[in-house]
Parts: sequence; structure tokens; C-alpha cells
Amino acid sequence: MSIIVLGTVALDTVRTPFGLRKHMLGGSAVHFSMAARLFTKVNLVAIIGEDFPPKHIDFLKRKDIVLTSLIKSKGRTFKWQGEYRGDLNTALTLNTELGVLSAFRPQVSIEQRSIKHIFLANVDPDIQRHLLRRMHSPRLVGLDSMNFWIDKKRQALLKLLKKVDIFVANDQEARSLSGEPNLIKAARYLCCLGPKMVLIKKGEHGVLFFSNSFILSIPAYPTDKVIDPTGAGDSFAGGFMGYLVKTDKITERNLRTAVAYGTIAASFNVEDFGLNKTSRLKMSDLRKRLKKLRKYVLF
Amino acid sequence: MSIIVLGTVALDTVRTPFGLRKHMLGGSAVHFSMAARLFTKVNLVAIIGEDFPPKHIDFLKRKDIVLTSLIKSKGRTFKWQGEYRGDLNTALTLNTELGVLSAFRPQVSIEQRSIKHIFLANVDPDIQRHLLRRMHSPRLVGLDSMNFWIDKKRQALLKLLKKVDIFVANDQEARSLSGEPNLIKAARYLCCLGPKMVLIKKGEHGVLFFSNSFILSIPAYPTDKVIDPTGAGDSFAGGFMGYLVKTDKITERNLRTAVAYGTIAASFNVEDFGLNKTSRLKMSDLRKRLKKLRKYVLF
Repeated sequence: MSIIVLGTVALDTVRTPFGLRKHMLGGSAVHFSMAARLFTKVNLVAIIGEDFPPKHIDFLKRKDIVLTSLIKSKGRTFKWQGEYRGDLNTALTLNTELGVLSAFRPQVSIEQRSIKHIFLANVDPDIQRHLLRRMHSPRLVGLDSMNFWIDKKRQALLKLLKKVDIFVANDQEARSLSGEPNLIKAARYLCCLGPKMVLIKKGEHGVLFFSNSFILSIPAYPTDKVIDPTGAGDSFAGGFMGYLVKTDKITERNLRTAVAYGTIAASFNVEDFGLNKTSRLKMSDLRKRLKKLRKYVLF
Repeated sequence: MSIIVLGTVALDTVRTPFGLRKHMLGGSAVHFSMAARLFTKVNLVAIIGEDFPPKHIDFLKRKDIVLTSLIKSKGRTFKWQGEYRGDLNTALTLNTELGVLSAFRPQVSIEQRSIKHIFLANVDPDIQRHLLRRMHSPRLVGLDSMNFWIDKKRQALLKLLKKVDIFVANDQEARSLSGEPNLIKAARYLCCLGPKMVLIKKGEHGVLFFSNSFILSIPAYPTDKVIDPTGAGDSFAGGFMGYLVKTDKITERNLRTAVAYGTIAASFNVEDFGLNKTSRLKMSDLRKRLKKLRKYVLF
């Protein structure tokens, strides 16, 4: 079993109350991959520039990420600069340098076109649609987006939503796209736009899973070590989709466990800068914490 | 088994996206009582003014609340006017008229002084301490407060915290009193100030229970009908304390169930204006929803 993930590969500069890190490897597709690789073979579809450090390529290869469709193009790699303050719940974007991302047209190999599990991580919805069209027989398609695209490319995003099974959004995005302040109503509304399942990520407050057959609400894994939340949502999606691909069966039980694995992956993500924690994870780490999370919600 | 609750009896004027209600019966002690009465006998300690409508007295009596220590004094009843917008997570206080509350010195009957379970609902910490001193043999003392007192009477509150077993605060209050943005760290810090147990209420995001022996994190009961959250925190405390008093044993298992009952009481509270929902509740309603909540967190 394998999954294909489309998204960004970025060089992130992040300042949090715990320090400043410059040009770390990051991006939605990379954070997703680092969690999903624990469950399944991950095929990364993204673009980098000429300035992309070769050590990062080596690093991704060592992590068993398939890089066949990672394009290197003339120009500079996508760069994001952000800061977190106080409770570290929201990122303040200081600077975004699109670089090669602005002309990105995803390419996939003939073999990859037959992959049945697809995750469209956060990137321009037109690029997401472009990839999805190239896929031969999608069986499970997940989609993430962000407020920027909800505002700038609402129509493209709404069109795309009709073609996906799972929509992953944070609470602000869910409210903004649905126009519903109540999250249950928002999730129900989003479900009507196409996806059979909606996942609303609430940062330190956990996640809400909504489908027509059941609702699941899991708190975040309680951690007192929130160092850098960048990519936590992507790690969540990676853990969630990864587990589903591994089990290869969309049952209620598997979906519930998948949400929990996503929660656990995200909890590790925030405990250090960039990929420091998720890149060193083993399945046994996830399993241990999953057990603990079960006790945290027990009553 | 019985409990004594000190707090406010108020006339609330509330505007939410769902309408405006004027001079509803409210206040921290009343909302607490309405949930706690389902589990145990509730003795209310509070003050009202000459303008307090007799129908509210009849109503509280019909709900089996013991009013021996509800003082009627010269002057006007405490009034609060507030508004909720958007996601209804935070109240905007438009006006507060203290009235008789400004000269309140709680009185309790000789019999009531022997009650072992005490809840000090939100009111001036000096008034809370005044009552606590009058109690003969407290076995379980819970305390709630608010940002106003954390800012204005920090020292009095810190002194009082040393004398209580359970501290109930919302996330903002916990962060403000501890100076810790991370809620786990905040809870740990607050536990060092005296109380053995700390409950951090997070509104629509549920609640975090913290003690030195275990942590529990329960999401809010997912409801798409949030009409008026006034008093939800007090209903939570009422359900939580009420269950503990009923079982009369502070075990981990009972504490876990108590947090769940608090969560359920709060979920009913928000589904209508004022006391409309909680005053009509039966134990069977709570039990039914508790079962559902267990399914919502199952993985």
C-alpha cells in the first residue's frame, strides 16, 4: 500500500518563545510525509529551487520518502517565516517567498498515477486539482487548505471539495468556509459540499471528526512541551491518512483509530522545532502514546 | 449528603445571536444549584435585594433548593448585562450593578455549619473566605473565581487557594493566575498553590482535570445548539461537585465520572437561555447524554 502526497517543500524560519530556527526543512508535504511514512510508503509530489540544500534530499531519502516526483526547478525554494507567541496557538506569518512554487505544475510518473490513496496538502487549489486530474483511479482522497485560499480562490476550492472524500481544516478555516460559528454546524455544512468526512483541527484543543454516520471528538494529547507547532496539522493528516492506508479499510473503527493516530503524530510534532521529533519517531512511540491518550479520556 | 454553595443570585440580561432576555434569574450560585440538585441537597448562601421577584423564590423552592441562608436586604439585587457574539465563546460584559452584593456578609445557620461539602462559586474572595471560616468541618471545598478577582484581589485569592481542595477556572483565568500560557503547566502551577485538584474549563473545547495522580481531558459534548452559555461553568461545577457529594468517596473513578457529569450539565446549560434547560433536567437526561459522550471519545 502507498500514498501520494502533493504539497509544499519549504525552508521555514520560525521564532517561538523557545528560540529561533532559520531555514529548517518544512512545508505541508514534508510534515505530512514524516508522519505518514510510519504507516505506509509515501510518494512526495512537490517542487524545490536551485538553492535547496542537498542534505535535505539525503535526509528525505533516508526516511524512505519516494522522491521521483520532487521537481527541481530554476529559481528559489519556497520560504516561510513565522512567529508564535503566548499560547502558541496561532502563527503570525512574517514573510512568504513563493519562489518556484508560483509556477508549479505537479508531475507524476506513470506508476504513481495508479496509486489509490491521495492527500492534497495545503497548496494552491488549482495545483491540487491539476494533480487529482492526473490520477487514474483515486479510492481515497484527502484535502487540506488554508484561509488564504478560502479567501482568494473560494470557487476553485469549492469545486475541488466535490471530488474529495475527506476534508481537513482548522477551526477558523471551517468557520470561514461555512459561515457557521458553531463547529458542529460548520462540519455538517462542509459535509454537504462534497466530502463524506470532515476533520476540524482545533490545535491544543484536539480534533472533531464528522461524518453522516458518526461524530468523534478527541482532545489533544496533553503535553507541557509545546516548542513549535509548525506542521502539526500536516502531521495530524499524515498520521490519520497513513493509518487508513495501512489498514486499507474504511470502517468506523479504523477511522476512530486513525483520528487518534493523527492526534498522537501532531503531539510529537509540536514538542520540538521543525521535523526534529517526527523524523525520529518509531511506531512503538506512537502506540505507547495512543495507549496513554486512551487513559486521558477515560471516564 | 448535602452541599452548601456560596455565590451570586443575579438578574441577568443577555443578548446572543438568538435573542435578548431581560432580568432572567441567574448568578453563579443559582446555576450551580440547578445542576447540583440532581445529585444532592443544595443549600444556597447568597443575597438578594428588595426588587427580587417572589416568583423566583417560589421557583427555587420548587426545585428543592434550601433557602435558609438566602438573605433579603435593603437595596437592589445584583444585575449583570452581557452579550455573546460569533462563536459565543466569550461574554462581553455591558453592565454590572452590584447592588446588595457590595455589602454582602454571608450567614449560615448552625445546622448548615456542619455541612462537609462546600462550593465557593464566583464572588469576592473576601466573602468566600468569610463563609469558609464559619464552617465547622469542611471535608471537600471547591472554589471558582474570575479574572476580575484575579486582577483586583490576587493576594486574597492566593490565600484562599491554600484552603481549598478543588480549584475551578477557565483557561484564560488559569493562564492569567499562573502566568503560564501552556495549560498543563498552568494546571501544575495552580496545584502547587494549594488545591489538590485543578479543573480548567475551556468552553466549547471541554475541560482539563489535573491532579498529581492523574490527568483527564474531556471534550465538550458536541452540540449544535449553543443559545446562551451564561452559567455553563457554574453548571459544570454543580454537576461535578454534585456527583462527588452523592458518591461520598474521592476515588479516581468517581472523579473521572464527576468531570463527565459536569461536562454534560454544562452542555444542557448552553442549549437555552438562562435556566430554561437545566431547571427541567432529570437524572435520566444526564445519564443518557453521558453514554453518548462515551461514544464521542471512543477510539
